[in-house]
Amino acid sequence: MKSAVVLLSGGLDSATVLAIARHDGWECRALSVDYGQRHRAELDAAARVAASLGAAEHRVVPIDLTVFGGSALTDRAIDVPSEASPGIPVTYVPARNTIFLALALAYAEVTASDAIFIGVNAVDYSGYPDCRPQFLAAFAALANLATKRAVEGASIAIAAPIVDMTKADIVRRGIALGVDYSLTVSCYNADRAGRACGRCDACRFRRQGFAEAGIADPTRYQG
Amino acid sequence: MKSAVVLLSGGLDSATVLAIARHDGWECRALSVDYGQRHRAELDAAARVAASLGAAEHRVVPIDLTVFGGSALTDRAIDVPSEASPGIPVTYVPARNTIFLALALAYAEVTASDAIFIGVNAVDYSGYPDCRPQFLAAFAALANLATKRAVEGASIAIAAPIVDMTKADIVRRGIALGVDYSLTVSCYNADRAGRACGRCDACRFRRQGFAEAGIADPTRYQG
Repeated sequence: MKSAVVLLSGGLDSATVLAIARHDGWECRALSVDYGQRHRAELDAAARVAASLGAAEHRVVPIDLTVFGGSALTDRAIDVPSEASPGIPVTYVPARNTIFLALALAYAEVTASDAIFIGVNAVDYSGYPDCRPQFLAAFAALANLATKRAVEGASIAIAAPIVDMTKADIVRRGIALGVDYSLTVSCYNADRAGRACGRCDACRFRRQGFAEAGIADPTRYQG
Repeated sequence: MKSAVVLLSGGLDSATVLAIARHDGWECRALSVDYGQRHRAELDAAARVAASLGAAEHRVVPIDLTVFGGSALTDRAIDVPSEASPGIPVTYVPARNTIFLALALAYAEVTASDAIFIGVNAVDYSGYPDCRPQFLAAFAALANLATKRAVEGASIAIAAPIVDMTKADIVRRGIALGVDYSLTVSCYNADRAGRACGRCDACRFRRQGFAEAGIADPTRYQG
């Protein structure tokens, strides 16, 4: 059985990616990162999603990115915007996907996995630079030079199955694969119970996805 | 003044790199990683080296790589070899330099730095795949796609000034620049006081470097 590491934030996109990988026959090891994010409820969501979609394993790596800050998600002094704005928003976390993929590469090497799945999306997204296909291609080139396994001839693929899909298509695909989106948390301002603010970028893209897909939104909102 | 992030382990190589970067006129921010390494004394050494060589700042990022293990440095059940052996040794830490460079990239972005210095060496080394020039070139390509700063047109260089030097040349260069190697710790089995075992790969390369350079070895050995 093919083996993969799946980066699992606990949000809608990565849950769908895990479902796709499972459906395509991969044994999946889920990896979440406890990086000091504001919306820690997503880590509880990741555990629920990993269990519900049959991940063989779920590991959480602690790494304190508040040491660097520079983002509304890792510096409490910076507020999450409640309206869309031009350019890359302050919720961008410096080098986050580079760090996450590097950690996934370590996990993939110790488990002799053949692929890393990541739920980046470059359609209904916030313009983060490390969600773009050219970034993923560059990481794949790096990964195939970086490890002992690579030197020994094993190759590793970086799979981003939803990178070109609209949010509505992602929701439709996940529903078809049996994803229970009520388990997921996308909101940057989620409270401890995982209830969403309904106003941040992540909430807006998510809500719009359900609406355009014509599927009832199972998100629990605050207040 | 040009600004750089310098990955600083506390060992001989990275101390020399910090001295080179300072000598070349860079304002340097030192970054160390507390990753659950067996030889934690190197973190104390890094703090001493950063101070003695005039780093503008020294940050330590905690990240628990024992979650993955797979190396004698991150899994206490695997012994550090006391003799050289063919191939990549068990002290190789899966994806370590990919992870370290990713963290350095985050730090470089929040500090608007123009370069990342790393003390990898591909001559007197243990054959780690992520010390090779082609690996560094691939990371540079990635780094220049990965960040908001890159999208805005800023480029970042990955500098590895000792990658092609012998250990003896590294020692000679460091001495010429005033590095106090008694502050550094290279040993994988260093005790809490930073005293070296004299037998591991890191000790052997270090000792050989001082011997070939004709410079008295300031290393404090155990026992």
